[in-house]
Amino acid sequence: MKFVERLIEIIRKKNSLLCIGLDTDIENIPEKLSGEKDPVFSFNKDIIDKTHDLAAAYKINTAFYEVNGVKGWTSLTKTIDYIPDDVIIIADAKRGDIGNTAKRYARAFFTELKADAVTLNPYLGSDSLEPFIEYDDKGLFILCLTSNKGAQDFQKLKIDGKYLYQVVAEKVVELNKNGNCGLVVGATFPEEMKGIREIAHNLPILIPGIGAQGGDLEKTIYFGTDSKGELALINSSRGIIYSSKGDDFAQAARNAAEELKNQINIFRRKKNL
Amino acid sequence: MKFVERLIEIIRKKNSLLCIGLDTDIENIPEKLSGEKDPVFSFNKDIIDKTHDLAAAYKINTAFYEVNGVKGWTSLTKTIDYIPDDVIIIADAKRGDIGNTAKRYARAFFTELKADAVTLNPYLGSDSLEPFIEYDDKGLFILCLTSNKGAQDFQKLKIDGKYLYQVVAEKVVELNKNGNCGLVVGATFPEEMKGIREIAHNLPILIPGIGAQGGDLEKTIYFGTDSKGELALINSSRGIIYSSKGDDFAQAARNAAEELKNQINIFRRKKNL
Repeated sequence: MKFVERLIEIIRKKNSLLCIGLDTDIENIPEKLSGEKDPVFSFNKDIIDKTHDLAAAYKINTAFYEVNGVKGWTSLTKTIDYIPDDVIIIADAKRGDIGNTAKRYARAFFTELKADAVTLNPYLGSDSLEPFIEYDDKGLFILCLTSNKGAQDFQKLKIDGKYLYQVVAEKVVELNKNGNCGLVVGATFPEEMKGIREIAHNLPILIPGIGAQGGDLEKTIYFGTDSKGELALINSSRGIIYSSKGDDFAQAARNAAEELKNQINIFRRKKNL
Repeated sequence: MKFVERLIEIIRKKNSLLCIGLDTDIENIPEKLSGEKDPVFSFNKDIIDKTHDLAAAYKINTAFYEVNGVKGWTSLTKTIDYIPDDVIIIADAKRGDIGNTAKRYARAFFTELKADAVTLNPYLGSDSLEPFIEYDDKGLFILCLTSNKGAQDFQKLKIDGKYLYQVVAEKVVELNKNGNCGLVVGATFPEEMKGIREIAHNLPILIPGIGAQGGDLEKTIYFGTDSKGELALINSSRGIIYSSKGDDFAQAARNAAEELKNQINIFRRKKNL
């Protein structure tokens, strides 16, 4: 099954655009897990147990695992293995390298780690993305317009009247022969999201920047989803997984996840009225 | 000591601009190592033993390690630990993420893995680079113009008469307050290298693309080094480490490294005449 078809199937089955970011920081997990052999995995396991029915996807930012070295890569592997099949696993790795190297990254994330999708950086151009595109059952979310202030340094530069991030979006649309390309667009730029959705009307968009980064949820849903109110994944990391520092952390994460999922669906219905 | 000062000291002491790429592929290492517990590390160890006196730097491409999962990250860690202090260790990771995440990557590569420098992708802008810049004894090599065909897709787009890669070079010059920023420029574009060296006259440039990728060595040295014939690292990976598939692989790598080091120095002298 093509990646985009599987994504739509999961979104519909669960009636959810929610993506939960497992940016698990060893310094932020509850006391009671500190005695565990692999506290990061134990934390993730409890969060996954309590939230997998609500989430269309988990996004796992590799930095939070690499910072713990070999141990971290072990937690990352165990976490991916533990996630049930009906949730899309996005390795938020933001890789980007020349073809020969990109082939290794594709194997590392798709074959070795068994992620369903990966985030990629477009700076090296088409041939850095193609080794990933070949896996048509796997997904690529390519950085287009990011949620941070530095997005203006290069992404918002103008090329013949178009912004660089728009040129990137157009190129990704052109590369999407296998139905597995998507974009990453930060929720902090709803107006720009509108323009990107017009360029990439049938591409999934992964949207971080809700919550801690201050993105506007209603506008994000309105402009970021496709004409059916689908094809977008709304990510929240810290806002969900650190809802409580106490023993009730997993239930608190569930509550936060459920609230966000429902709020997203309210705005989806409003859009479709 | 500031990163750039340490780099110059090593370049002068060894009279070498050579950077050896440890892009070690388990499928390309000699038979006789296949029985070892960690064949990738054993291969690297032998290569390092035979070449460390010739090299100013080792560049370790993380993709070739991540493709082996937890085992690969172990080989990467052991390799970095094994490299002597008088060789700069560049983690060729090409990371790039928002500030909160970039902090973790900086810690992962500088504190946890103990690399001396890292390659970074500029697409997310200044605030994605700043957490690395704060480590003034560590180096950042930021992708400017890469050696692959896809470099033309975005890097060679024109913004108000300037190419994107030139805008990137200018921004990195501006960010270089701590004497630790450098650029990555592929050897396959010698004319463009000239222009970049004019913008970034006091920045180290890491130059891949010699050998398998077909860059012209003489022009690369002429345009890529600074006015003293220094401040550049010329990388060769496959051309050195896979010189022989037999039991003599480490000696063959040494021979190839020595030849390239000497050839580089011939062109440096020619430039300075």
